[in-house]
Amino acid sequence: MSQHEVSRFGHVDLDDLPPDLRERVGAVAERSGFVPNVFRALGRRPAELRAFLDHHDALMNPPEGTASTLSKAERELVVVATSGANHCTYCVVAHGAILRIRYADPEIADRVATNPHATELPVRERAIVDLALLLARDPDRLTEAGLDAARAAGLTEEEIWDVGAITALFAMSNRLAHLTALRPNPEFFTMGR
Amino acid sequence: MSQHEVSRFGHVDLDDLPPDLRERVGAVAERSGFVPNVFRALGRRPAELRAFLDHHDALMNPPEGTASTLSKAERELVVVATSGANHCTYCVVAHGAILRIRYADPEIADRVATNPHATELPVRERAIVDLALLLARDPDRLTEAGLDAARAAGLTEEEIWDVGAITALFAMSNRLAHLTALRPNPEFFTMGR
Amino acid sequence: MSQHEVSRFGHVDLDDLPPDLRERVGAVAERSGFVPNVFRALGRRPAELRAFLDHHDALMNPPEGTASTLSKAERELVVVATSGANHCTYCVVAHGAILRIRYADPEIADRVATNPHATELPVRERAIVDLALLLARDPDRLTEAGLDAARAAGLTEEEIWDVGAITALFAMSNRLAHLTALRPNPEFFTMGR
Amino acid sequence: MSQHEVSRFGHVDLDDLPPDLRERVGAVAERSGFVPNVFRALGRRPAELRAFLDHHDALMNPPEGTASTLSKAERELVVVATSGANHCTYCVVAHGAILRIRYADPEIADRVATNPHATELPVRERAIVDLALLLARDPDRLTEAGLDAARAAGLTEEEIWDVGAITALFAMSNRLAHLTALRPNPEFFTMGR
Amino acid sequence: MSQHEVSRFGHVDLDDLPPDLRERVGAVAERSGFVPNVFRALGRRPAELRAFLDHHDALMNPPEGTASTLSKAERELVVVATSGANHCTYCVVAHGAILRIRYADPEIADRVATNPHATELPVRERAIVDLALLLARDPDRLTEAGLDAARAAGLTEEEIWDVGAITALFAMSNRLAHLTALRPNPEFFTMGR
Amino acid sequence: MSQHEVSRFGHVDLDDLPPDLRERVGAVAERSGFVPNVFRALGRRPAELRAFLDHHDALMNPPEGTASTLSKAERELVVVATSGANHCTYCVVAHGAILRIRYADPEIADRVATNPHATELPVRERAIVDLALLLARDPDRLTEAGLDAARAAGLTEEEIWDVGAITALFAMSNRLAHLTALRPNPEFFTMGR
Repeated sequence: MSQHEVSRFGHVDLDDLPPDLRERVGAVAERSGFVPNVFRALGRRPAELRAFLDHHDALMNPPEGTASTLSKAERELVVVATSGANHCTYCVVAHGAILRIRYADPEIADRVATNPHATELPVRERAIVDLALLLARDPDRLTEAGLDAARAAGLTEEEIWDVGAITALFAMSNRLAHLTALRPNPEFFTMGR
Repeated sequence: MSQHEVSRFGHVDLDDLPPDLRERVGAVAERSGFVPNVFRALGRRPAELRAFLDHHDALMNPPEGTASTLSKAERELVVVATSGANHCTYCVVAHGAILRIRYADPEIADRVATNPHATELPVRERAIVDLALLLARDPDRLTEAGLDAARAAGLTEEEIWDVGAITALFAMSNRLAHLTALRPNPEFFTMGR
Repeated sequence: MSQHEVSRFGHVDLDDLPPDLRERVGAVAERSGFVPNVFRALGRRPAELRAFLDHHDALMNPPEGTASTLSKAERELVVVATSGANHCTYCVVAHGAILRIRYADPEIADRVATNPHATELPVRERAIVDLALLLARDPDRLTEAGLDAARAAGLTEEEIWDVGAITALFAMSNRLAHLTALRPNPEFFTMGR
Repeated sequence: MSQHEVSRFGHVDLDDLPPDLRERVGAVAERSGFVPNVFRALGRRPAELRAFLDHHDALMNPPEGTASTLSKAERELVVVATSGANHCTYCVVAHGAILRIRYADPEIADRVATNPHATELPVRERAIVDLALLLARDPDRLTEAGLDAARAAGLTEEEIWDVGAITALFAMSNRLAHLTALRPNPEFFTMGR
Repeated sequence: MSQHEVSRFGHVDLDDLPPDLRERVGAVAERSGFVPNVFRALGRRPAELRAFLDHHDALMNPPEGTASTLSKAERELVVVATSGANHCTYCVVAHGAILRIRYADPEIADRVATNPHATELPVRERAIVDLALLLARDPDRLTEAGLDAARAAGLTEEEIWDVGAITALFAMSNRLAHLTALRPNPEFFTMGR
Repeated sequence: MSQHEVSRFGHVDLDDLPPDLRERVGAVAERSGFVPNVFRALGRRPAELRAFLDHHDALMNPPEGTASTLSKAERELVVVATSGANHCTYCVVAHGAILRIRYADPEIADRVATNPHATELPVRERAIVDLALLLARDPDRLTEAGLDAARAAGLTEEEIWDVGAITALFAMSNRLAHLTALRPNPEFFTMGR
């Protein structure tokens, strides 16, 4: 069947983005070898894309010297668990690729996205995934007791904030992908396998 | 029982925010007569607060001349329906206050937050609320059929984007409030009643 | 939009109730300053209203000297938690008003109705709310283990009965309000704030 | 394993009930050949049992000449569908027995209690069961649209009230049975088979 | 209302089955006094019926000398708990009859099928039922922790396999019964009562 | 952390299977280039593996000349949709590989497993997937109305049986994989990409 290439609302090519976004997205594209579709879809609304990129960078690529010690691999683990829980094809496929690379494990993304509960994980990562799933699915159940479980596994307060804030960011991203019927770039399906 | 005043992670007072945020949040505080707690709680992480404010302004206070014609009252309707679905006390109370003011209706917020399905609404607002609830709760069910319902009620593509993007933004905000156990300022409980 | 004033099935004014109900409801109206809509809606069926009032009085206003020591404030806490779980606008608004007054706390009703799990409560009240929510939502899970939690918090057998019976009564009341699309009287929205 | 005979809160024998209840319950016992356990369990609180009986009689045994034309068999159909949805063993077994007798059909109770959706029913009874299940499980979804389905099947406004009010009454009864861990009398298991 | 006798896809009489199935099903029919409808419904596809019978016999009637010590009564307990969770009328009625006979208890089937959580059971049987319900309803939650609960109750690894494999077999059988709208033979409703 | 290679219950190597199973599984291994783990895990119970293989072959590799015209690609579509709904990592990964090959589409498996509702599909395949999801998740809702939707999309009665029976078979297989914590062979993750 025929269908859109990027998003049900159309998309904007890299060259048609405002200069600051063109530079920023261009840098990502250079590293990846292609322009991830999320930027072309959200580019229709530059102010929204800019805020999204700022938020994403603050949480996924924190500058050196910040308080949090959550690793980049662990951050991607939160993203894939959350995106699986939210049934978001774009984020499961795109961030699944990054998760495989970060963990140098070609199987971890499919495991976590399909069944995060039964994926064998070390205690710290199990606590990270459980906290992300709780906040993704049943946010009203995030009481002190829920956080105490994360604390018992050794997560610091800043790490708990990071897990929670990344889960929250992808509660938004996943829904933007559903809203726009965002298609993953073909490259993501095989990266890191 | 004793408990925190603003957030389980503590907070930052207006004067301790970076200058740009102090000015921005200060302007809100001047209009409201108080500093909404969300800014004091998120202020611990200025880059995240800044991105959140940018995203919020782009969607909730769009500049004159933008394509979307969703009214400010309708935008708040999306927020309260979403926040009720996510059981977020801070957002139900704070945005409930704004919704009462925007609609000049002292009852609408409690109705929409408690039971959005049975709240009597005109066809356009019913479609807005139904789309927000679908994306908030069951985002994987947002298929073309779901959007066709909104289209049949006369929503334009840009309006559908707005409803969806605001729902997505508050999927994030609500979870940040749950994460931080954010307390509504006492003033919100009675505004607009 | 136009809509009914009290109930989708119409209503009966105080003067048109049978004498015993007129006297009884009249006494409530005198104390409140208005006739709560639930009595005008259910008044179409006097035998049903009479049984409902009897049941309500037995559980919510037990005579002096009865075995149970559940306080009136705690009884309202059960009602608001149950009514929030059942998304009943009439009962959340009307009993929310009474809860604010009983606890002399203008915020407690909105907190409990929106997110009972994360509302900070003393151990005894936490156990009361948890028992009410369990019986309201998943009654088949009310096993001895569930009751043991309430017992550990110090609830007596008669208090457990009260919490359970009030939850059951409002499982009914909430559904009668949904059935009749019962509107809260405007006065309830602001009482006790 | 050892267990209680009637209720986890003990029970009251017929002779120990207040005179009015003894007479009333005695009349039922005479017809049935035994005292249904619900009366012995609730008899610990005579005022509550009295209100329950009044409500039950008003809805399940309406006096001649009332407006509603819902048949007694249809009323039991509502009870069994509701009690199955609420996983209430006492009510499924006890009212299942009555349903078999009212329909002179030894299979109908097991069918409706186990899977009400797939039980083959005439249009009118299908609408009755669907309305009961909606109000029992998802009362916030009972909007005008839900009632229009019942109206299209020919139910009058008074019949809709009856279906809804009976469902609401058993939302209460079922929870009282769960609360008290009420055991069905052995006689109910085989009546009408 | 008129309806099919056995299955919505029609059925095959005993005499029209292939010889091996005729002999096998005939032996069951001789013991029971009638041909259970499941065999007449699935008989339309002999290869599928044959595989189903083989699987059923391997798990429900294991040959002498096999490692597992799960009793035949316990196996039926798994079937009825699973079939109740799956709302399967045929299996609840047919295997409910067998469960009554195996336990020599006329009430156990209705209890377990209606509310397995609150049915009073010895520790071992409680663990068996809980494991079956977990795998029937939320199979992704079957982690080592879930199995440790069964192990703590004394179940061996082979017994855990049996409980799980029987639950899985009836996850299939129940769905075949739903697919074919399979009617229980009238005899099953009263056997063992 | 250390973990099992195949199943939490250990496994049986090809050479240790009974001769008939060795031959049968050996033939699969020869075509694939490896022994799929499901056969090594279930091989601990030869009678159960044999019945499973028989059932699988009858439904997934029906002999020439059978009534059903469901294509092999469509059969795998049912398996992947069902296995995604059941969160079964083994079946999503293993049958996802086969689905990619059957459709010659490297993306279809990730799409269907992550979000079957929003995957763009032709009318016939949409009806197939919807029927499978209904029977996998909410089997009690499979009423005549549900089947009428499939019929409207042109599915024959035999095709409906096939979709339903394959969904039922994988309701079992998925649960056996959960029970045994079955690990997909590494080869499956990349086949057909």
